[in-house]
Amino acid sequence: MLDLPRDETGLATTTVALRRLQELLPEFLVDLTTDADAEGLVVPLDGGVATATAAALAVDAVGAEDVIGLAMPAGLTDEATARTAETVAEMLGIDHRRLQLQPVVAAFQETVGEAGGPADDLVATDNAVERFRTATAYYFANRREALVVGPVDRTDRLLGSATKYGETGVDCLLFGDLYGTEVRALAAAMDLPVDMLDGDGRAPAGGATDANRLDVDAETVDRALRLHVDEGREPRAVADRLGIDRSVVARLKEWCAATRHKRHMPPKPSTNR
Amino acid sequence: MLDLPRDETGLATTTVALRRLQELLPEFLVDLTTDADAEGLVVPLDGGVATATAAALAVDAVGAEDVIGLAMPAGLTDEATARTAETVAEMLGIDHRRLQLQPVVAAFQETVGEAGGPADDLVATDNAVERFRTATAYYFANRREALVVGPVDRTDRLLGSATKYGETGVDCLLFGDLYGTEVRALAAAMDLPVDMLDGDGRAPAGGATDANRLDVDAETVDRALRLHVDEGREPRAVADRLGIDRSVVARLKEWCAATRHKRHMPPKPSTNR
Repeated sequence: MLDLPRDETGLATTTVALRRLQELLPEFLVDLTTDADAEGLVVPLDGGVATATAAALAVDAVGAEDVIGLAMPAGLTDEATARTAETVAEMLGIDHRRLQLQPVVAAFQETVGEAGGPADDLVATDNAVERFRTATAYYFANRREALVVGPVDRTDRLLGSATKYGETGVDCLLFGDLYGTEVRALAAAMDLPVDMLDGDGRAPAGGATDANRLDVDAETVDRALRLHVDEGREPRAVADRLGIDRSVVARLKEWCAATRHKRHMPPKPSTNR
Repeated sequence: MLDLPRDETGLATTTVALRRLQELLPEFLVDLTTDADAEGLVVPLDGGVATATAAALAVDAVGAEDVIGLAMPAGLTDEATARTAETVAEMLGIDHRRLQLQPVVAAFQETVGEAGGPADDLVATDNAVERFRTATAYYFANRREALVVGPVDRTDRLLGSATKYGETGVDCLLFGDLYGTEVRALAAAMDLPVDMLDGDGRAPAGGATDANRLDVDAETVDRALRLHVDEGREPRAVADRLGIDRSVVARLKEWCAATRHKRHMPPKPSTNR
């Protein structure tokens, strides 16, 4: 555990905190790679801030030659973000591949249809695509004896906005303890082109969409989670402190509870002793 | 935790133990389904003993009408096991589907090849197929708001013979605390057609293959793991007790250590407090 300096509502976005994170996170990756006897790191790139930051930290950790970035569009709508992902990879000087998963998804839908399943469920298909991305990232990781680094952050984890065994199917949750606001601040501190990465048509993850529906900005969501979950403050106190409606905090609390299963190993009956 | 009656080397294969498991495991599934507000259970069926036993216990838990069995062959070599899987599903009276994943795998290999990756790595491809199976099981589970029950047992988990986010990518590890020997004894006690299920051409999982290479039978592997891991006996004592070579126990110990990452959530740097 590390005590990072924090701002008034507890987020680690101060200059000193961000500088320490820029040391700490690559050190973590170095230790992980060494312990696993791995040959490098695989980072999925989706054209967003978090994956770009993960790739940059991976380069700081093991060097550009041992990082591979994978852009995995699943149709034409992802082409713009795949191009952004490639720009990031070129900027970082890492090996990168573009894998268009659309034909895989099409084959999958045909298989499901032939088995009498409804092949057009949008949410279920999106989840399947995320799991195909995991399978693809591991294919390259297996080939190179590399580890897969994922960009899922603490906000995603608490709200359950990442697909189980999709985005969470990685060897390392580099931002697992950092809120989205902190990751964005880190990206800016690392001189990554945050505007380009934020400004594209990247589809928000499920939780981000949910957060949007709350009618508060992403940073406020993070501050509310920090105060409620990490500091144990009552929803009422959190709402008053941040000047938001209590129902917003109550909703966040519900989501944290309902998505607990995504943050733990699958349960098993205890019969071993 | 449940104290099951055990035989002389600690496995829960006595009649009394198996009877208790036949009550305990369905109860666990009932609680899990209720807590998750789920509408049913999805069980992958591979023509082997463990998945058939999982399906039978799922039926005991929630009734045949709320269980769906998925046979997911990935080529012609899996057709025989898919037929065995269908026989099991019919015997249990559950809804079942056969999803031939070969076209999905072919599309994936073409995508990998186009991205300049070697598309013919056998181990990496097998792992990808297991992850496609996870994606497929969850597609059906998402559709029905059902939970995915997996057959990975304690032997698989300790030896790391299940693909991470493949066979381990489930909502419940029903046999997570039971050794393979115990699962087979349970299947026999439940009057499942163990010979048919064991006798087919089912490809052994990675760990089973490894265990075979040790030149001891699967039951001895389980007894060695039980004595060493659960009861904390030294490798030398375990070897003497079971009349096997010490190097076998040493090898098992190594595998347990090397596959630890598969039994835990992906690590994250601790920066949250």
